[in-house]
Amino acid sequence: MSEGRLFDGVLARGRVRDAVGDTAWLQAMLDVEAALARASATAGLISEADAETIGAACGAAHYDAAEIGAQAASSGNPAAPLVKALTKRVEGSAAGHVHRGATSQDVVDSAAMLVAHRALRPLLDDLEGAADAAARLAREHRATVLAGRTLLQQAVPVTLGLKAAGWLVGLDEAAACLAAVRDERLAVQLGGAAGTLAALGDRGAAVMAEMARELGLADPLLPWHTIRTRPAELAGALGTACGVVAKAARDVTLMAQTEVAEVAEGASGGSSTMPHKRNPVAAISAAACAAQAPGLVATLLAAMAHEHERAAGSWHAEWRPLTELLRSTGSAAAWLRTCLEELEVDAAAMRANLDITQGLLMAERISTELAGELGRMEAHEAVERAAKESTQVEGGFAAALGRQPEIEGRISGERLAELLDPAGYLGSADVFIDRALRAHDTREARA
Amino acid sequence: MSEGRLFDGVLARGRVRDAVGDTAWLQAMLDVEAALARASATAGLISEADAETIGAACGAAHYDAAEIGAQAASSGNPAAPLVKALTKRVEGSAAGHVHRGATSQDVVDSAAMLVAHRALRPLLDDLEGAADAAARLAREHRATVLAGRTLLQQAVPVTLGLKAAGWLVGLDEAAACLAAVRDERLAVQLGGAAGTLAALGDRGAAVMAEMARELGLADPLLPWHTIRTRPAELAGALGTACGVVAKAARDVTLMAQTEVAEVAEGASGGSSTMPHKRNPVAAISAAACAAQAPGLVATLLAAMAHEHERAAGSWHAEWRPLTELLRSTGSAAAWLRTCLEELEVDAAAMRANLDITQGLLMAERISTELAGELGRMEAHEAVERAAKESTQVEGGFAAALGRQPEIEGRISGERLAELLDPAGYLGSADVFIDRALRAHDTREARA
Amino acid sequence: MSEGRLFDGVLARGRVRDAVGDTAWLQAMLDVEAALARASATAGLISEADAETIGAACGAAHYDAAEIGAQAASSGNPAAPLVKALTKRVEGSAAGHVHRGATSQDVVDSAAMLVAHRALRPLLDDLEGAADAAARLAREHRATVLAGRTLLQQAVPVTLGLKAAGWLVGLDEAAACLAAVRDERLAVQLGGAAGTLAALGDRGAAVMAEMARELGLADPLLPWHTIRTRPAELAGALGTACGVVAKAARDVTLMAQTEVAEVAEGASGGSSTMPHKRNPVAAISAAACAAQAPGLVATLLAAMAHEHERAAGSWHAEWRPLTELLRSTGSAAAWLRTCLEELEVDAAAMRANLDITQGLLMAERISTELAGELGRMEAHEAVERAAKESTQVEGGFAAALGRQPEIEGRISGERLAELLDPAGYLGSADVFIDRALRAHDTREARA
Amino acid sequence: MSEGRLFDGVLARGRVRDAVGDTAWLQAMLDVEAALARASATAGLISEADAETIGAACGAAHYDAAEIGAQAASSGNPAAPLVKALTKRVEGSAAGHVHRGATSQDVVDSAAMLVAHRALRPLLDDLEGAADAAARLAREHRATVLAGRTLLQQAVPVTLGLKAAGWLVGLDEAAACLAAVRDERLAVQLGGAAGTLAALGDRGAAVMAEMARELGLADPLLPWHTIRTRPAELAGALGTACGVVAKAARDVTLMAQTEVAEVAEGASGGSSTMPHKRNPVAAISAAACAAQAPGLVATLLAAMAHEHERAAGSWHAEWRPLTELLRSTGSAAAWLRTCLEELEVDAAAMRANLDITQGLLMAERISTELAGELGRMEAHEAVERAAKESTQVEGGFAAALGRQPEIEGRISGERLAELLDPAGYLGSADVFIDRALRAHDTREARA
Repeated sequence: MSEGRLFDGVLARGRVRDAVGDTAWLQAMLDVEAALARASATAGLISEADAETIGAACGAAHYDAAEIGAQAASSGNPAAPLVKALTKRVEGSAAGHVHRGATSQDVVDSAAMLVAHRALRPLLDDLEGAADAAARLAREHRATVLAGRTLLQQAVPVTLGLKAAGWLVGLDEAAACLAAVRDERLAVQLGGAAGTLAALGDRGAAVMAEMARELGLADPLLPWHTIRTRPAELAGALGTACGVVAKAARDVTLMAQTEVAEVAEGASGGSSTMPHKRNPVAAISAAACAAQAPGLVATLLAAMAHEHERAAGSWHAEWRPLTELLRSTGSAAAWLRTCLEELEVDAAAMRANLDITQGLLMAERISTELAGELGRMEAHEAVERAAKESTQVEGGFAAALGRQPEIEGRISGERLAELLDPAGYLGSADVFIDRALRAHDTREARA
Repeated sequence: MSEGRLFDGVLARGRVRDAVGDTAWLQAMLDVEAALARASATAGLISEADAETIGAACGAAHYDAAEIGAQAASSGNPAAPLVKALTKRVEGSAAGHVHRGATSQDVVDSAAMLVAHRALRPLLDDLEGAADAAARLAREHRATVLAGRTLLQQAVPVTLGLKAAGWLVGLDEAAACLAAVRDERLAVQLGGAAGTLAALGDRGAAVMAEMARELGLADPLLPWHTIRTRPAELAGALGTACGVVAKAARDVTLMAQTEVAEVAEGASGGSSTMPHKRNPVAAISAAACAAQAPGLVATLLAAMAHEHERAAGSWHAEWRPLTELLRSTGSAAAWLRTCLEELEVDAAAMRANLDITQGLLMAERISTELAGELGRMEAHEAVERAAKESTQVEGGFAAALGRQPEIEGRISGERLAELLDPAGYLGSADVFIDRALRAHDTREARA
Repeated sequence: MSEGRLFDGVLARGRVRDAVGDTAWLQAMLDVEAALARASATAGLISEADAETIGAACGAAHYDAAEIGAQAASSGNPAAPLVKALTKRVEGSAAGHVHRGATSQDVVDSAAMLVAHRALRPLLDDLEGAADAAARLAREHRATVLAGRTLLQQAVPVTLGLKAAGWLVGLDEAAACLAAVRDERLAVQLGGAAGTLAALGDRGAAVMAEMARELGLADPLLPWHTIRTRPAELAGALGTACGVVAKAARDVTLMAQTEVAEVAEGASGGSSTMPHKRNPVAAISAAACAAQAPGLVATLLAAMAHEHERAAGSWHAEWRPLTELLRSTGSAAAWLRTCLEELEVDAAAMRANLDITQGLLMAERISTELAGELGRMEAHEAVERAAKESTQVEGGFAAALGRQPEIEGRISGERLAELLDPAGYLGSADVFIDRALRAHDTREARA
Repeated sequence: MSEGRLFDGVLARGRVRDAVGDTAWLQAMLDVEAALARASATAGLISEADAETIGAACGAAHYDAAEIGAQAASSGNPAAPLVKALTKRVEGSAAGHVHRGATSQDVVDSAAMLVAHRALRPLLDDLEGAADAAARLAREHRATVLAGRTLLQQAVPVTLGLKAAGWLVGLDEAAACLAAVRDERLAVQLGGAAGTLAALGDRGAAVMAEMARELGLADPLLPWHTIRTRPAELAGALGTACGVVAKAARDVTLMAQTEVAEVAEGASGGSSTMPHKRNPVAAISAAACAAQAPGLVATLLAAMAHEHERAAGSWHAEWRPLTELLRSTGSAAAWLRTCLEELEVDAAAMRANLDITQGLLMAERISTELAGELGRMEAHEAVERAAKESTQVEGGFAAALGRQPEIEGRISGERLAELLDPAGYLGSADVFIDRALRAHDTREARA
């Protein structure tokens, strides 16, 4: 029995799980063999009939992943036993043409690209689902004012719309980056024993190109068996995606704190013994999945120094972290999508939290406003004095401000109230929300 | 279907694979529940009969890891659905005492420690098997001279015995470190809802101590639900073990190069199309497994900043990297054991490689020897001159040395030949080999 | 000009900064040369006078780190140009004995151990200073009740004393681990050209032992030039220390949130334009420093696979991350010490936050209490019903509980009030605090 | 004194060192302040004269990095003390407009982008210099045959030209990726206290756009203070670049081995006591620099989850790894450029190494050739038999082949000799070299 299912509910959410599972890998390797056969036929190296016979044997259901996996121990990779099993299954003369001209790494590398390509569909779908949910929040909560917090201290007001627009931009950028890697950089690998494709005579490049076409992957300049930019760029883009998911998830868990209570997850995990708890399970799980990425990316980058024409370990070292990284990122995206789609917003709580400091949050604005009349220094000092007095004065900051000699008489109580209104001090928030939404609505990246 | 079996032949070698698999985790969680029940009975909180009834239901075979795993999505961890299933299975009044006073994290954390404790048995067994094989090589090849290589350039002679002694010391140190972590730091976790064990009244500490005894784990000062030194120290020790495995594996792959050909693996992976190849599959696989560690250790260290009384994601983030790290390290150790146990040594090839530089490797020695008579500078210059001339002179370095005016007449040809003998310039190699062997033979660490 | 000073105020706090600076490294390398000379004299290989002459030239002030550093480019390490400069400075016959029998790596590795040994003094001092501050908080706030929070949701009550005791145990464990590595694992390195010490004849082991004594470092079984367990174990211990610092820092930043306001740093960073802000600068800086560790540890672990008798890059790859890791950890510890030593605690705010849920936090306790009389299920249901009604009922949870048919008449209002008192539901908190304090007071680890 | 200069000769090669040094950072921060002032003037918020006055004070030479750095401790970042010092230096009314509307993070983030932008010039220059050198090798050694090696075992022949073409493609891809990040993703940051630019009224977006123009950076959709995709993508591209450098460096160190001796570095590090050594110092140093990347990338990715509107530590955690990563990558590129530009190739040694297996390397080809006539299985068996006999037969593999009944008479000795010629079995090597060269010659990326 293999591992990890016990944690799959949390760490392998969504369709990405099956997309990187054993069957998916097995089918991808078989698809590569079938494409190689068809491409070889197109290139005139084998007959169409043989290619068809080979293709017909390339269904994952015919093979046992666990058995192939176990046999991989003697050759050092799963392609060797799979080719053996496939050859056995193929009848007649076609058997002699299975895997012709290719090497094990060609199969595993091309399959890795296929697995990634296919896994990116649900992954991007969930990432974009999360982005859509963020866009909806940005649109609906354009006017929902809450405290902007820096270093976890309330600073000046922002809107939930702007906050969600920030998540949105991050998600859209990460999705665009992943889509670009998928469309331009996931390439077929075919190099033969040492990257010359010598066994294919002068048809090497032609077979490679045709195989790429068959598989819907890019046709690389050179076999990239030891040029590991492709897995590295994929890893970087996945790592970036996890980072933006983690940011949004962190914000949600912080806003969902009992003492803050500005949001809750629709399907919050309850606790039978602690009925008041509304655990933001989706955000927490998203964070946990996303936290896998930095280490996995590091492993893939550290494995790039492949020796000569095939690495003595670094190639083998890529298989698991690449699989894990796809699954973790896909799972993180799926959790965040759930989290944001079902997010319950408590605008009143946001407003109430804004009032904790009784207007102190608006000090910057008052200062700026007064600076025109009083000069920056004097204005600043008056506001600072009022801020200090505010805790001892009935009426808080507003009253304390009114009592400052520099302000008294200069600014009416009415104007002061206006200046102390958080909703009036949002700068370019709306401009930014509009930009984020427009970019989202007109983007090209699609799963 | 879950993932990874396709690569298990390479990346999950040996008994460690099952030791960290789903069944192992499931049984560990159930063992924790059973121990909690027994400890509660000992503490007088529940009856012995109820504890027995609960214990009787704690067999992994009764539960379905995949189903438990799937249900984990709603609560955010697999302990919650397992407790539900266990409670359902337990009959009568005992059902009311299942999991009493504990929280999900208590079960998963304690189970993680149990899984680690159990997985360390095969892991240490293989690590020490590799060490034994290194010790045998150190003993048998005490006099097998080969080129010491620095920066991949031949430097001065060493012996294979000394080289193997270096592997041995690294392996023994790593094993000792892991055994110490296992024996002193793998502790039971029991804290209840927030680390106070409030639901156990004043019996909390007593139950925790008894549970530790039951499970063969340490009894911690405090519940360590948010003090993550234990997983961190385990991770560090596993990472170190992978490092020493990687070093030995790297040496083997380098010595096995076609152009060096000093060693070969007994069961080297052949290639039907390339009959001359003797792929050092075990060393390569060991390297690939070991390469997983740095990133996984980083993930575990980065997850240490748990929020308040239970982390909002960092705890969940530990499960998979801890499991992976145990498996990868165990697998790396198992591969290295195979590699070293079956290593074929070609002493003649070692000797032949030593002669590539026709004595230049002994330049340091000649220099040192002459320094006594000539002074360091003059000696050095004479040797350097001879080294330069050696490529153009019949008889190589020896002849060139003999022709230097400072040497001619001073040192007999016989003495020169003696000085040029690599076997005579091994310094403390034997002393070091003896030390390493003695330390290995008298060590305490045992799987 | 070199880099990094601009960020030193935040990222290189305390005495550790100078302890790992260029002068410290330079002096350590020179101390190694001096110790080698003295040890060689003791072993009878050179005269005492020559050793003294060499030692007299080994003051860092005589050498220019930047110049030595620049010259390192041609040889690939700074020991080679330093030895050259040292030899030049040493007069007479002694010049011929500078660095005798040693290789550059011997100097740099031994110096690295010395630098680490010396840097661990301020580092451990600050770590233990932070622990002392945590111990004081644990002692003084034994009875200061606040909400225990799991997944950032209020769960059941804990005390600040217990929370601080958790920080304390983590800090003490990390310090003990570091002290053990320092005392047992930081060893001299002396191997000569390829680890045999051939140039020292049969005196190699003796010189190594004497050198270790001179430098106050351990005498290793073997030269460890390619056995990198020592830097790895040091790295692991430093990474663990950063993790426990990060945990405490995270708690402080969360408790210091404007909406929580339970603690503030004494010297909180103010903002002139936002007078209400009390930025927990020390906690934030501690977190930033600690965040450097996982990646640096990974780099050091990934560099363990040294080739043959001297690595082709992996050795050089250790210098900077080891230095950075010492500095970051020391700096993290210094910041946390400042943070905890000056922490202002607002017990009233803690109490007020506890009341946010109007007693719901005590649901677990009521449930447990009722279970005795009603049976677990019925008790649970009654409490859950009351919890749901509590928001719509005058008098909150207490009133709602009193209205449940299962409870009415069974439990007096007085008893209910007692059961709802958080201070009465703290389980083993005091026991755990005592344990942590006792362990701290009797520990041996000292800077 | 700050740290690291002692290792700069190895780890901070080339112009990138100064490009990321303290002065560079300081000037970048001041450039940001100057640009903000000019942009504010353009937007009509301050007078042109004031902007000019501010700009005139923005020379790094006026400020002391160490002092600014030390003062950063109290505010938690170096922008605050710099703004203070700048304001002090600016005379008259302009002083009141220094840093207007901005926050410290705006300055540090924008400066980070500027530093990166500027550092990428020498970095890309060296990366492309290395690529040019690889292109030259690919062109000149198109016909230089050597053993292709997989898993460090000789496999089938390749050419040095193809090998170099592989390095070339990797370097070109990495450079293109970095250039794209530089041109499209390095953006100005301006958000004010919490990302709304409230203090700039309705001119926020306009000031940001103008500032971007002034600094030659991109104008982002939104302030990206908590959307860390930009540093993450930069990190990923730098990490990828290090990976391709490491690959080429590894190949060089392996080919430079004493036993392989196919290449040597022009300025190989000699050893006075070991005159035969030609240490590939440049390749080794390149590898050491590149090895820093994975951990640093992981640190930057792990720091992406910024809390709310400014992170409580994760932002501060980016400064040093970003600086280190730029320096390490630039240094790695500079070393590889030196290594490849001066690489001495020994074609005769390559040919001699090819002959070690006495033709066995051509087994695949013979097999393929015979398969047409004999059928694949029979052909394979005959070749395998010959391979086995080859070690016991005078004349080696060629003779053994001739003696096989299936071959004898079917293939002439002449044809056999032709088939055994490595230069005739290079498949698409030339096609691939041409592709790589064409792509390199027509690429757009330029430093």
